[in-house]
Amino acid sequence: MEREELFKEVSIKTPSKIVLIVLDGVGGIPFREGKTALEWANTPNLDKLAKKSILGQTDPILPGITPGSGPAHLAIFGYDPLKYQIGRGILENLGLGVEIKEGDIAIRGNFCTLRDGVIVDRRAGRIPTEENKRLCSRLKEEIKEIDGVEVLFTPGMEYRFALRLRGEGLGSEVLDTDPQMVGKSPILPKATDPRSERTARVAEKIINLAKDILKDEKRANFIILRGFSTLPPISPMQDIFRLNPAAIATYPMYKGLAKLVGMKILDVDGMSIADEIKTLKENYKDYDFFYFHIKKTDSYGEDGNFEKKVAVIEEFDRFLPEILSLLPDVLVITGDHSTPCRLKAHSWHPNPFLLYANTIIPDEQERFSERACAKGGLGRLFSVDAMGLMLAHALKLKKFGA
Amino acid sequence: MEREELFKEVSIKTPSKIVLIVLDGVGGIPFREGKTALEWANTPNLDKLAKKSILGQTDPILPGITPGSGPAHLAIFGYDPLKYQIGRGILENLGLGVEIKEGDIAIRGNFCTLRDGVIVDRRAGRIPTEENKRLCSRLKEEIKEIDGVEVLFTPGMEYRFALRLRGEGLGSEVLDTDPQMVGKSPILPKATDPRSERTARVAEKIINLAKDILKDEKRANFIILRGFSTLPPISPMQDIFRLNPAAIATYPMYKGLAKLVGMKILDVDGMSIADEIKTLKENYKDYDFFYFHIKKTDSYGEDGNFEKKVAVIEEFDRFLPEILSLLPDVLVITGDHSTPCRLKAHSWHPNPFLLYANTIIPDEQERFSERACAKGGLGRLFSVDAMGLMLAHALKLKKFGA
Repeated sequence: MEREELFKEVSIKTPSKIVLIVLDGVGGIPFREGKTALEWANTPNLDKLAKKSILGQTDPILPGITPGSGPAHLAIFGYDPLKYQIGRGILENLGLGVEIKEGDIAIRGNFCTLRDGVIVDRRAGRIPTEENKRLCSRLKEEIKEIDGVEVLFTPGMEYRFALRLRGEGLGSEVLDTDPQMVGKSPILPKATDPRSERTARVAEKIINLAKDILKDEKRANFIILRGFSTLPPISPMQDIFRLNPAAIATYPMYKGLAKLVGMKILDVDGMSIADEIKTLKENYKDYDFFYFHIKKTDSYGEDGNFEKKVAVIEEFDRFLPEILSLLPDVLVITGDHSTPCRLKAHSWHPNPFLLYANTIIPDEQERFSERACAKGGLGRLFSVDAMGLMLAHALKLKKFGA
Repeated sequence: MEREELFKEVSIKTPSKIVLIVLDGVGGIPFREGKTALEWANTPNLDKLAKKSILGQTDPILPGITPGSGPAHLAIFGYDPLKYQIGRGILENLGLGVEIKEGDIAIRGNFCTLRDGVIVDRRAGRIPTEENKRLCSRLKEEIKEIDGVEVLFTPGMEYRFALRLRGEGLGSEVLDTDPQMVGKSPILPKATDPRSERTARVAEKIINLAKDILKDEKRANFIILRGFSTLPPISPMQDIFRLNPAAIATYPMYKGLAKLVGMKILDVDGMSIADEIKTLKENYKDYDFFYFHIKKTDSYGEDGNFEKKVAVIEEFDRFLPEILSLLPDVLVITGDHSTPCRLKAHSWHPNPFLLYANTIIPDEQERFSERACAKGGLGRLFSVDAMGLMLAHALKLKKFGA
C-alpha cells in the first residue's frame, strides 16, 4: 500500500486547524561563538512555546542529501520527493509566477552569445536583468504562437528566462540545446520519444525566430533552452488528506509549489511577516490547513548574513503570539531545508522541527534550536512524515485496519 | 527514483578525503560493573575526538535484525543490504580469499560421514582443520575441470570448504544437497531453472568423484554442497558515488566485500593495527575514500573475551592521533554490527557512530560509547545512510532538484 492510498483511506474532515510555518532555510551550523542563528537569536516566545511542545529533526530527502526548494517543499506537504520530481523548467516558471497547467511544457532558457556559429558565452556576459526584460518583452511580442502552440516568454534574473508552451500533444522528452561548453555550436532541440516531436519542432522554430529578432544584439543574440518538463501527476491535498488548504507566501516559487498540491493561494498585501500575519488572520476561518512561508531566513543564509538571519528569526518571534492567539489545534514550526550562513547555500543538515498540540508528550527541551531539536522527543524523521503527525494531532486520521 | 540513481545524479568528484574506520563488532551491552567494552576502555583520544564530533547510532538492516558481515558491510558502503544480497557461497569463498568474478558459481561445502547410503554426521565429526586441508588438497588435485568448467576447492575451518565453478553458462539456481538431518540420503543437486542445469550436472559429477576419492576416509567420506550463488549485479562505488576508494583490511572476507563494490585492496604488511596505519599513510594521497577495518574487536566479542576486546579498543585509541594527523575532511568511526561479549555472537544492537568534520554541529557528548551515541545529535539512522552523510560533509554532493 502506497503512502497516498493509506492517507486517502484514513483521512477524515474535521473542523480542527493546522498551521505549518516554514522558516525557509532556518537550520544552520555553528557560526558565532559556536552558536547557530537560532541559538544566537533572542526568542522569548519561541522558547516559551518550545517548553510546551515536542521537538525533533527532519531529513527532507535522505540523510546527507541537500534539496532544492522544490523537493524540500513537496516533502513537508506530505509528498515523497523521490517519487514526485519537479522539472527545472517547471520550477523556473513557477519561480517567476507563471501559471503551469497539466499538459503545458515548461522550459528554462538562457540568453547567450553566438559568434560565427559557435557559442562564445553561455550567459551572454551576464546581461543585467533590465536588458533581459527588454529582450523578453520583444520576444514575447513577436513570438506569440507557433503552429497552434501558445508561447510565453518571462524574464528572470540576468541572462535567464522562462518559457512556457501551451497546446495539444506536447511531450517533454526533449534534450537540452545547451552544448555545455563554449566554442561549440548550439544543439537543435531533439525529441527522445515520438510524443515529443511536436515540442522539438516548435522549440526549433522559436530558436530560429529568436535568432532573427536578436541578431543586432551584441551579447544576447541567441537562446539556449533547457529542462523541458511537465507537471508530475500529483493528487491534490484535498483528495489525499481531505484538507481545505491555503498558502500564505510572498515569493512566486512557493506560491507555485503550493498550487501544485492544490492549495488556495491567499493574497498578501506586501512582503513582510506582518503582512502575512494579516492574511492569516483574515482567512483563518475559511481553511483548515495553512502553509505559512517566511523566505528571508533562507535569503540571508545564502548571503552569509548572520545578523540579518538572526533578525528575521527575532522578527518572527515577535509575531508568534499573534499566531498562537488564533488557537490552532496543531502548530508546526520548521524549515524546508537548512541554509547555514557559513556555507552560504542550502545544506543537508536536518531541519529543526517543533510540534505544538494538545495531544503531544512535551519533551524537556527549552528552546527551538538545532541542538535542542536533536535531543527532542520526536527523534529524527523524514520531512514527508510531518504531514501524518500534523493530521494525527489535529485528530484528522482514523484508525488504520481493525 | 532509487537511492543509486539519486547518488549518481548528485555525486561530484572533489579532492576532499573520507576515512571510514570500522571497528568490527565494537558495540556491546553491559558486561562489567554495568559497563560495555567501549565504556570500560581507557580512550583519551577517542574522548577528545567525541567532544568535537557528532554521534549517533546506526541499524545495519532494520531494528532487531542481526546481520552477517556481508550485509552489514554492504550497508556501510552505501548499498541497501536488502536489495543486494550476497549468497552464502560467495561469502564462504570471499572469506577464504578466493577471487570471484561475474559468472562464477560460488558454493560452500561440508565434509560429512556417509554410511550405508545415509548421512550419519553432517559435519564429519568436526574434523580438525589440518585434516580438511589434506582432503581439500587431494580434491583440488584430482578434480580440476569438469566438462569445460574449472573447479576450485579451498579448505576452511574444521569440516567446511569453499567451492568455485568457473565456466560458460552456469546459473546458480541449484538447491542445497544437504538433507538437513542425519539418517537421510544426500540429495542430488537439482536445478530450479533451465539456466542452472549445467551447474547441477557439474556439481553432481563433482560429488560422485569426491565420493570415490574420499572412500577410504573414516569420517569425511562424502561432501554436501550448499548456498550456490553468483555475484549480485552491483555498481561500483566509482560509478554511484564518484569515489576512488581503497580498502585497508587484513582478513580475506573484508577484502572480498570491499572488492565487490570496486575498492582497490591495499597491501598490508602484517596483521596489526600499526601495519594498517602504515598502509593508510603510504597511500593517503592516492585515494579519496578509505575503508579501514579492524577485525579483533569482533573476534574477542565472539570469544566473550572482554579484557581483550577492551585492549583492542585501547590499542586503536593510541593510533587515532596518527589518523587525525592526516587531516581527513571526514572521519567516521563505527562498527558494522555489534558483538557483545555477553552474547558471544553478532547482535542486533545498533552501532555506535561518530562523525568528525568541519561542517557538523557538535553535540554535547563526551565519549564514544553506546550510551553517548544513543544521545548523540545524529539520532538513529540506518547504516546505509552513513555514506550520504560522509559524502555530504566532504562536500561531495550537489543539490538535488532546484
